[in-house]
Order: sequence, then structure tokens, then C-alpha cells
Amino acid sequence: MINVAIIGASGYTGVELARILCNHPNIKLTAATSRQYAGKPLAEVFPSLRGKTELVCENLEPAQLCERADLFFTAVPHKTAMDLVPSLLAAGKKVVDLSADFRLRDVAVYEEWYQAHSSPELIHEAVYGLPELYREQIKRARLVANPGCYPTSIILGLAPLLKNNIIDPTTIIADSKSGTSGAGRGALVGSLFCEVADGFRAYKVGGTHRHTPEIEQEINALCNGSVKISFTPHLLPISRGIMSTVYASPVKECNLNDLTALYQKTYQDEPFVRILPAGSFPATQYVRGSNFCDISINHDLRTNRLIILSAIDNIVKGAAGQAIQNMNLMLGLQETTGLEGAPFFP
Amino acid sequence: MINVAIIGASGYTGVELARILCNHPNIKLTAATSRQYAGKPLAEVFPSLRGKTELVCENLEPAQLCERADLFFTAVPHKTAMDLVPSLLAAGKKVVDLSADFRLRDVAVYEEWYQAHSSPELIHEAVYGLPELYREQIKRARLVANPGCYPTSIILGLAPLLKNNIIDPTTIIADSKSGTSGAGRGALVGSLFCEVADGFRAYKVGGTHRHTPEIEQEINALCNGSVKISFTPHLLPISRGIMSTVYASPVKECNLNDLTALYQKTYQDEPFVRILPAGSFPATQYVRGSNFCDISINHDLRTNRLIILSAIDNIVKGAAGQAIQNMNLMLGLQETTGLEGAPFFP
Amino acid sequence: MINVAIIGASGYTGVELARILCNHPNIKLTAATSRQYAGKPLAEVFPSLRGKTELVCENLEPAQLCERADLFFTAVPHKTAMDLVPSLLAAGKKVVDLSADFRLRDVAVYEEWYQAHSSPELIHEAVYGLPELYREQIKRARLVANPGCYPTSIILGLAPLLKNNIIDPTTIIADSKSGTSGAGRGALVGSLFCEVADGFRAYKVGGTHRHTPEIEQEINALCNGSVKISFTPHLLPISRGIMSTVYASPVKECNLNDLTALYQKTYQDEPFVRILPAGSFPATQYVRGSNFCDISINHDLRTNRLIILSAIDNIVKGAAGQAIQNMNLMLGLQETTGLEGAPFFP
Amino acid sequence: MINVAIIGASGYTGVELARILCNHPNIKLTAATSRQYAGKPLAEVFPSLRGKTELVCENLEPAQLCERADLFFTAVPHKTAMDLVPSLLAAGKKVVDLSADFRLRDVAVYEEWYQAHSSPELIHEAVYGLPELYREQIKRARLVANPGCYPTSIILGLAPLLKNNIIDPTTIIADSKSGTSGAGRGALVGSLFCEVADGFRAYKVGGTHRHTPEIEQEINALCNGSVKISFTPHLLPISRGIMSTVYASPVKECNLNDLTALYQKTYQDEPFVRILPAGSFPATQYVRGSNFCDISINHDLRTNRLIILSAIDNIVKGAAGQAIQNMNLMLGLQETTGLEGAPFFP
Repeated sequence: MINVAIIGASGYTGVELARILCNHPNIKLTAATSRQYAGKPLAEVFPSLRGKTELVCENLEPAQLCERADLFFTAVPHKTAMDLVPSLLAAGKKVVDLSADFRLRDVAVYEEWYQAHSSPELIHEAVYGLPELYREQIKRARLVANPGCYPTSIILGLAPLLKNNIIDPTTIIADSKSGTSGAGRGALVGSLFCEVADGFRAYKVGGTHRHTPEIEQEINALCNGSVKISFTPHLLPISRGIMSTVYASPVKECNLNDLTALYQKTYQDEPFVRILPAGSFPATQYVRGSNFCDISINHDLRTNRLIILSAIDNIVKGAAGQAIQNMNLMLGLQETTGLEGAPFFP
Repeated sequence: MINVAIIGASGYTGVELARILCNHPNIKLTAATSRQYAGKPLAEVFPSLRGKTELVCENLEPAQLCERADLFFTAVPHKTAMDLVPSLLAAGKKVVDLSADFRLRDVAVYEEWYQAHSSPELIHEAVYGLPELYREQIKRARLVANPGCYPTSIILGLAPLLKNNIIDPTTIIADSKSGTSGAGRGALVGSLFCEVADGFRAYKVGGTHRHTPEIEQEINALCNGSVKISFTPHLLPISRGIMSTVYASPVKECNLNDLTALYQKTYQDEPFVRILPAGSFPATQYVRGSNFCDISINHDLRTNRLIILSAIDNIVKGAAGQAIQNMNLMLGLQETTGLEGAPFFP
Repeated sequence: MINVAIIGASGYTGVELARILCNHPNIKLTAATSRQYAGKPLAEVFPSLRGKTELVCENLEPAQLCERADLFFTAVPHKTAMDLVPSLLAAGKKVVDLSADFRLRDVAVYEEWYQAHSSPELIHEAVYGLPELYREQIKRARLVANPGCYPTSIILGLAPLLKNNIIDPTTIIADSKSGTSGAGRGALVGSLFCEVADGFRAYKVGGTHRHTPEIEQEINALCNGSVKISFTPHLLPISRGIMSTVYASPVKECNLNDLTALYQKTYQDEPFVRILPAGSFPATQYVRGSNFCDISINHDLRTNRLIILSAIDNIVKGAAGQAIQNMNLMLGLQETTGLEGAPFFP
Repeated sequence: MINVAIIGASGYTGVELARILCNHPNIKLTAATSRQYAGKPLAEVFPSLRGKTELVCENLEPAQLCERADLFFTAVPHKTAMDLVPSLLAAGKKVVDLSADFRLRDVAVYEEWYQAHSSPELIHEAVYGLPELYREQIKRARLVANPGCYPTSIILGLAPLLKNNIIDPTTIIADSKSGTSGAGRGALVGSLFCEVADGFRAYKVGGTHRHTPEIEQEINALCNGSVKISFTPHLLPISRGIMSTVYASPVKECNLNDLTALYQKTYQDEPFVRILPAGSFPATQYVRGSNFCDISINHDLRTNRLIILSAIDNIVKGAAGQAIQNMNLMLGLQETTGLEGAPFFP
């Protein structure tokens, strides 16, 4: 059993990490930190966990943390993460960071979208934790930057097209819709049931969402380019799930069956990517609670645009599940361990 | 009091027509037809209407119908409508048709997307019932083709840009999301609560939804063009509401404040269009139950794309409310009568 | 036009008062107060109201308020209300108080469940604002204590049985379920979308909810008794609506048709109570957005228990709508004015 | 690996059985039958299962079925089950029947509430599949009658009180609320999203729901009585979950701490019953997707009534999960295998 700890356990990513890890056969969860709930059993903060864990939330210093575990999930806000991670690495620990602090490889871009970076040297060491693109580097990494939820859905959806130079990347428009758990567990009026239920809205319209540079970084890495893309996030009245509808124009003649075959071939060995047959479309309810990313590629013959649909559970493949997939790789475990559960439907 | 009847009262459009009309000060609702529920009080089919109407559903022939009212709402499926409407018009009646049968001015286009048309001569007489574009023609019309829900949201969102030649219409992509009432009241597995709730999906992807030619018709009328556009509908786990997120590339230099001012000016005399200030975004919950269309225009400076957000209640401004707005115009009544209610929030 | 003001306009009751009043033909809304949003247009706090009101939220002293209106809705927390109301009354104004401060006629009971009362003399003057029971007193009142949402549903459901001595009041058990708007617009973790959606829970179990003494007061007034009852509130994942399922044992032989007839007779002149025929059951979605209370009386022959089902929209008949019904009575207006809208379905 | 088959795989219980069984380490799922979907892959009927099972729906005769598996789940309607089960048993197979056909031990009661029974001799052999009450008999059974969802929640909630003669069983009132998956996957107007969402209703009021005699049978077995109880089901706008709020009057002096201790002791060795500490209340969202039953016992001191709250996921502990728990017992496997997953929250 390998000792693992969750730093920042009181959010929705924290409880999902705990949910999955409490059934992981190779892992012992040894600490869960929370300033707000220090002293309170984690299963009181999240009664869903009653009977599944005895952990009590703690407020621990880095030195104390390092005595507890060999690998850490840092599920804390950006800025907090970059101040904490160096001391964990210095103590010889491995880290899967779920914040944005180590995702952007260009410090200047990070500082443009966030704030000054206190550990720029680690940016270059950190591996972007999308196993479908960076599996081998993740296996060897000390520090994995777990991808954002929107970027995961969009990048997996576009990778086959970009790698094979099928689309003009300047034409990419990603229209994404996320469940409300993506807004976190903070007590904000905008996240109240009565504000969200039975409704739908866009937010951070016009290229202002901080996932934009992350998406662009990986798109440009895939096509060896330097494009900017359009990304519009929306808020769905559901707890879990992201659907990205991505538009792009092909630069060569396209055939739907060939495209579907290309997607199937690209992901044929991937345990968590399901390519749908032509004419079938994903739905967030078919990936709910699982680590799957469901993708379909479509061709609008009238306008010659490609339309990629990509669905994930934002707190599994978009956060906690992907983090555990990365952990498995970093620890030399079977990549799928703990993540085999089929989606919940209905 | 003017006598008015609803043909096809047992669907969600039917109940919404009845809800609004039962409080309309100038209208007497004299008949509600339904084959399935003939003989049953409408307020038993829809218990929300108890105490608001004594009407009993009937199965009436056109000749019987014509004795009952001077204006008819035909809330029946396409094909059924075109077989029924001619006899109503021949009897000197006015008709607001909520089906698709008289929306497309080009018979060939209609027949490509639907089936053979049995009354092509009426196609040319019918007025497309979007008052913001065709108010004067509607006032004089015998037959108004009430617009589709998706087209209403998209066309109102694009009209100021198209009229002023600000965008390249070939770049238009409309990513639309609709509440489930849009799927009707038919007993289909795909519309069950457990299939829709807590989920989100796209459907009819790739230019196959029948609202596509309707949107294109009005876009081309506005820009004097002949473009095709990309339109992707999605299903929201809400009962009422449509949000369209529309992307287009400008052909001239743009300034957000000028664009917002243009929208405000275009719609300044419109009672049911609300232009949001720059930086505010519409939400379906803010138009719920009302005849409003809320629009914001946005500019993604990084990619130089315009993003129009347009929200309506799909069964009010997208169906029954707009139909009553058209009725008011056709009957010489105050356009807003019966439609003054503020949206329901929360 | 009579000038009216809302004190405490930034909650869900406030926005609902504004929604209804902005279309009330006899009323001019002249002020809306909010400490938190002072200086902000009410239609920015609640974008649903855009175009319906120009009011700007203000933070006004009682003296300033008194210059603005002749009748006030105090939609503020208990304690705040009792400190404010005396000065309004002293200036000759009328008040509909939506807090709990003047509902309990026994100061000792109030002080047991809340805190010390600063205006006990007004308690005896205040009229409990349930028009179906106290219409004549309300017409003459300066101060109306608008009933709680749960009590409204339960008392209207039980009144015919209690007035006619049909049940043993000690056997009353009220199992009530409320939409989340009842929890208010405060930014609390427990009211977040992800905590409430797709779930259901009881709260304040075991006779601890503060609506308990209010329910008992009116039950005892109706049966001339001094019983205690069981009341269990639950939280529904909906925005609007309360359903109370009330159990009681009859003390005489009962017949369902006679009971239904008794209910119909009791409420035959009531504009907002709809008695369902035997075998039909109310649903919150059939009263949504309206001032109706839908009631059905049922008899479990196997156990000889009566089961009363009573459904309201908690922020209309359970709060703002009933307050306006009271206002209409206090001002000598038609009781139903502004409240004629049929429920929203779907 | 033991071969197991699902008869009637196209409903919500069927997909949940498949979801759990596809990860069960000791089980091989060898057949899934469905008349409607014969020839279609199960993972096309339920796209959530893509990649988790290759099974194709079949329409098989009993003789063919018997070649496929050693244990069968019959997830078919009542009547269908009793016609099918005898041939499976005759072939030496084991059966967990999820219909109502073998739950009632008194044939006359069955025939009063359902219809004539074609295999009355099996009624006496069948074991009621509530492991917390009948574990040893289940281990030896050929035929287990899997309990109804409502009865599971109510019986587990009442058992400690009844076994210890703490309450007067004639005073029991069970007010239960169920998610919509309980209504099945049939295409009915009443189960449509727009009819259920954002609403709440009671149904089968007044002792008419068929789970009533099942609840009474087990209550009477526990208290050695012959009482009738009041049971009112309600429909929640959620997919999964049942909450039962049960009222009963004690016949002796009660103390909340002692009662909680009694509950904890009664269920201390039960892997799937979680007793909440005094003052904590269950919520359906805390058991979602799991086989847990969460219970709290409460005492209303003002009226001296006990209030038991009991929450389950209706398609796990209320159907498929409990069926698999029974299967594990019948096959000599670890009782919890395949059911260890923590609940999904949010």
C-alpha cells in the first residue's frame, strides 16, 4: 500500500478523490487537509463518505505532510499550489497538482493570465497530465499538472485532426457547457440552486476564461502552430458533466467514415476514450461518474465544417479521475485501477 | 371580444396559448381541439388551467371550426397544418400557423426538407411572423407563419449585423441549446425525465435539423445573400428556454460599444427585445415565462470573432407568445396585450 | 395610483413582489430598499426585471421611507421587522409584514421560539393575513402579518375539517416539502446547486421548525383547542412550490364524496383555492407561479385516516402573492388584481 | 466465474444490474434478454455501457436461457415473472426475482392486490430478500423475492423499534418520496421530463399502492401482529433516491440517545446500513449510486412521536444492488462484492 494524501479535501474535487481512493486496492489515504474543517471527520463534511473513511480533516504544515505520504494531490487554488509544491518535491515526494499553476509551460503566458509565478523553474519540469498525449513523461514525472476540465474535453476531441493536419487550426471554435460543480463549493449567490436550476447561461465570453491559453498551448503543440482559438464556456443546470461542441474547417477533402476510423485508430489503445460510431452523439449522462471521454466526429456537408462532440464528467476525467490515472502511471500501477466503474445511468 | 380557437390544444404550445389567452382582455377562447382528449375538459388535460377555463376538448371538422372563431391558432404537426389551413382561409378566417408548413417561401426548399406541399400557392401569401422584421406585413396578413423557436433566437440576434453588412455571413455558426418542451409532449423514451435530467446532449448534428433552411432564408433576406450556415441544436435539462451562441467574423473594424449601441438602436422601439449592456450576458432563467428576447453582442479581440448571445423562452417568444403577438397585430390590438408579464425568477 | 414600497427587495420574496407589482394597474412601486445593493438598479440585481422597472435600490431611513409610500411590504428578517414597523405605523402608513414578528398572538410563544419582542403591543393589533380566514379583519387592518409558507398550505388544508369537528386535532401530522427558494438568497453552502440538485432531505425534524407554533395557533383557533401537532419540513430540488401531506384521524364516520363536497362548499367563493375532485391529487407544477392553493381530501379506508394534500407556490401564495392579496384588501381594491395569471406549466 | 443472466435488461433495473455486474470479479454476465431490443447490443440501448459489455440483447426461451447461466435475475413485470420462474427452478437454476410475484407469502393477499397466481406453491419456498432480516434463509434459497424499493426503506427504518416492542404499530404512517426511475422506462406522458421536472406530487394516495401489503407483511412479522399502516408515495424530480419519513407513537418512555444506540447495535454488523448520529438527517444525495441505507431516529418531544428517516438509492439498495447482495449470499460469495463503491456526491 502506498501512502497518499489530499491537500485541500473540502471541495468537490477533494470529495471525488476520496470517493475513488477509498476503494483503490493499492493506496492508503493517510491525510486530508482543510483549514476550514480542521478537526472534523471528512465523512461529516461529506456524509456520502460515512463508513468509507475514518480520516479527520487537518491543517498541516508541509513538514508534517511530508511524514504522511509519498504522493500528494494538491486540490487547492492556484497561487496556493505554487507556494506549496516546491517543499513537497524538495522532500522527495511526488505531486499531482490540480490547480492551474504548472499547466502553462510559458511563464509569461501564466503571468499574463494569472499573477507572478514564484516557482518558474518547476514549470519546465512539470508534465501536462493528459495521459493520452504525455503518458511516458507522466510515468517519469515528479510533478504532474493535472489538466483543466474544459481543456481535457477539447484537446482529446481535436488531437486526431491536429496531429494529421486535417483542419485549419485558426478556425477552431469551442463552445463548451459545464455542470455547476466546476464552479466549486464556495458559497456564492451565483452558484445557489435557485440561480442555476431550470436555467442556462454563458459566462466569461469573448476569450477571457483562463482555460483559453491552456487549450491553445496544447493545440499548438499538436499542430506545431501558434494559433488563437475561440472558447465560450456555459453553465449547465447539472452537477457533473462537460460537453464541448467544437467547430473547425478542414484543409483537405474529408470523409466521415475515414474520420471516424482515424479517431478509432488514434484512441484504440486508450482505456478511457470511447469513439462513437458515425451518427451517434455523446451525452454527459452516459459518462456520469466515470473516467470516460466520449467523442464523435461529424461533418456538416452543407458548410464543409467538422463538428467534434466531446463529453466527460468534469470532476472525474476533468479532475479527480484523471489525477488518479496520473497517480497510477507515476507509481507504476495499472493505469485503470480504481477507475473501472461504469457510468451511472440514469 | 374576438372569438379565437386553438387547433391542437393538447401539446405544450397549446397549453401555453391557453394560459396566456385566458387572461387576454380582448379575446374569448371559444374552442380547443384535440383528437386524443376529445370530450375531456382542457383543465383536466392540464390541471394548471383549473378554474381558468371551462373549455372542453373537441374533435371538430373545419366547417364546425369556422362557426366558432374568427382567428385560429393551428398548433398541429406540419403536413396536418397545410391540409387544414386552406379551408379556414377560404371561410374568411385569419390563421396563425405554428407549424413549419408556411415558413419557407421557396416550395422546393420546403419539399427538400419536409415533403410535397399541398398548398404551394399559400406559401407566397403567408407572412413570416417575426414582428421585429415583418410587422407591417403581419398587420395585413390573413396567414402568418409563426417562426420556429431556434430561428427566432438566432435571427433576432443576427439581424443588426446582417442589415449593416458587419459580418461575413458565410462564417456564421449557431450553437443552440433548447429546453425539453421543444421536443413536444409525445410519449417518447428519449423525452423521459430519467433520460434528460442531469444531462446534456447534441442532436441532429451537421446541418440536418429542419430549422436550418428557415434560419438561412431569413439570414439571406437580411444580407441579400445565399449563404449556408452551421447550426447545432442541443437538449437542455430544463423545461423552458433557448440560448443561442452565435459566432461570426466581422468584415470591418469593430468596437464593442458601437456594436452595443447599434443593437440598442435597432431594437429601441421593440417591446420584447432587451439589449444587455456590454459585459452582461443573458440567461434563460431571466426570460422564463415571458415574451422577451435578451441579446448581448460580444467581441473576442484575440480572434476577432463576434459572439452573439440570444435567450428566449422557447414556448413563449419561441411559440405561443409570439403567436399571440402576431394575433394582436393581425387584429389591430395593442401588440403587447396579454404579454406584459415579467419573467419568473427564480 | 397608490404608492407602495418594498423594504428588503433583494431576496426572492422581494423580486416576486416586484414582478407582480410592476404589472398591477392600481399601484405605483416607488421604492425598493436593500443595504447590500444600495445604488444598484433593481433590474441589475434581478435581470429578469430589465425593462419592467427603473427602480434603484436604496438604503433609506424610516423617515425617508414614509415620504415615499402609503403601504409598505417589509420583506426583512424577523427582529429587523419589529424594530421598523412601529415607526411606519406611527406615520400613518399601512404595513404587510412578511417576517414572523407579528404572526404569533401570544408574546410568550413568540419569545420562546424567537427572541424578546420589542413591540408586544402591536402583536395584538396585527391581523394574521390569511384572507380565507380573516378577510374582514384584514380589510380594516393597519398591520397584517403575512403567514408563513408552510402554515398557509397546512391551515388551508385543514380548516374545513377543524371547523366542522371532523378530526381529532391531536392526531395531526404534517409532512411538508418545500422548494429551495424558501431557504432564501443567502450565500450558504447548503443552498448551493450541487448540494440540493438531484437530492432530497428532511431538516429541522422533531418539532423544531419555527413555523410549528404558527400552525398550532391557527389550528387551535379553528378547533377551539390547545393541541400540539407534528410537523416535518423537507427540502425539494425545485425552486418554487410546497406540498403538504397532512394526516389526521376522523372522530366520526366519513364519506369521501361528502368530504369533497364540504371542501368545495367551504371554499366556493374563494378566488385562490381550488378543490380537486375525489381521486385527483395536486402537484406543485400545477400551481407554479400562481396564487392558487390546490387541495384534495382523501380517505384511507384501510386505516381510517384522512390525508389532505395541499400545494402552493411558496413565493406566491406562500409569500409575495398572498401579501399582495392582503394589500388589495387593505386598500379596498379588487382582491384578485395583479394575481390573475394562470400557473406556468410546463 | 459464475455465469449469470439478466432477464429483462432494457429497464432501469436492468441497466443497473449490468453496470454493477460488469465489474463483479466472480461473475460472468452471459445473457441479457429484451424482446423490444432483441439483436441490439446492450451498449447501444444504454450507451453508458459502451466498452463495458459486448452483450447483445436476445429474445430467449426458458430452455435456451437455462443453457446460459446458473443464476438469473428476472427484472420483468409481475405476472411475467411467475410464468417464467418455475421453469428456471425446474432446471436447477437459482433465481433472484425483482418483480412482486413472490414477495407476498399469503396467496390470497397477492391475489387481492395483483391477480390470480399461477405458481402458489413457490410462494412458500421463496425467501424475502432483505438480507438484514433473512440472511441465513437467503443463503440457502433457490428463489429470492427481491423486496420493493419503498418497503426496503421503510422496513429497515422500523425494524429496531418493532423487534423491541417500542412502538404501537397501528400508529405507523409512512410518507415516502421516490425518484422517477421508480416509474420505469416506459414511454408514458406522466414520466416525461416536462411533467416531472421542477415539480412534486403524491400518487396512489390512501392505501392503494401495491407496496402496502408488502410493508405490512414484514411489519407484522417483526412485531408478531396484524396491523394495517398508512403509506403515501410521492414522486420526486430526481432520477435516483427514496426518502421515507415514518411516524409512530412509542408505547414506553423513550430517550433519543438510547434509541440511536439501539439502532446502531441492531445494525452494527450490517455492511450497508449506516445509522446517523442523533441530530443528523439522511439525504438521498448521500446514498446516490450506492447500496447504503442511511437511517436516523428522531423523537418529537412535544408530541411524543418518533420520526424515522430512511434513505436509499431506489435502483441500488431498492432494486439491483440488493439483488446482487442476495446473489452474493446465494452463491456463497462475499456479501459486499461489487457493491463497495462509495456514493456519488455531488
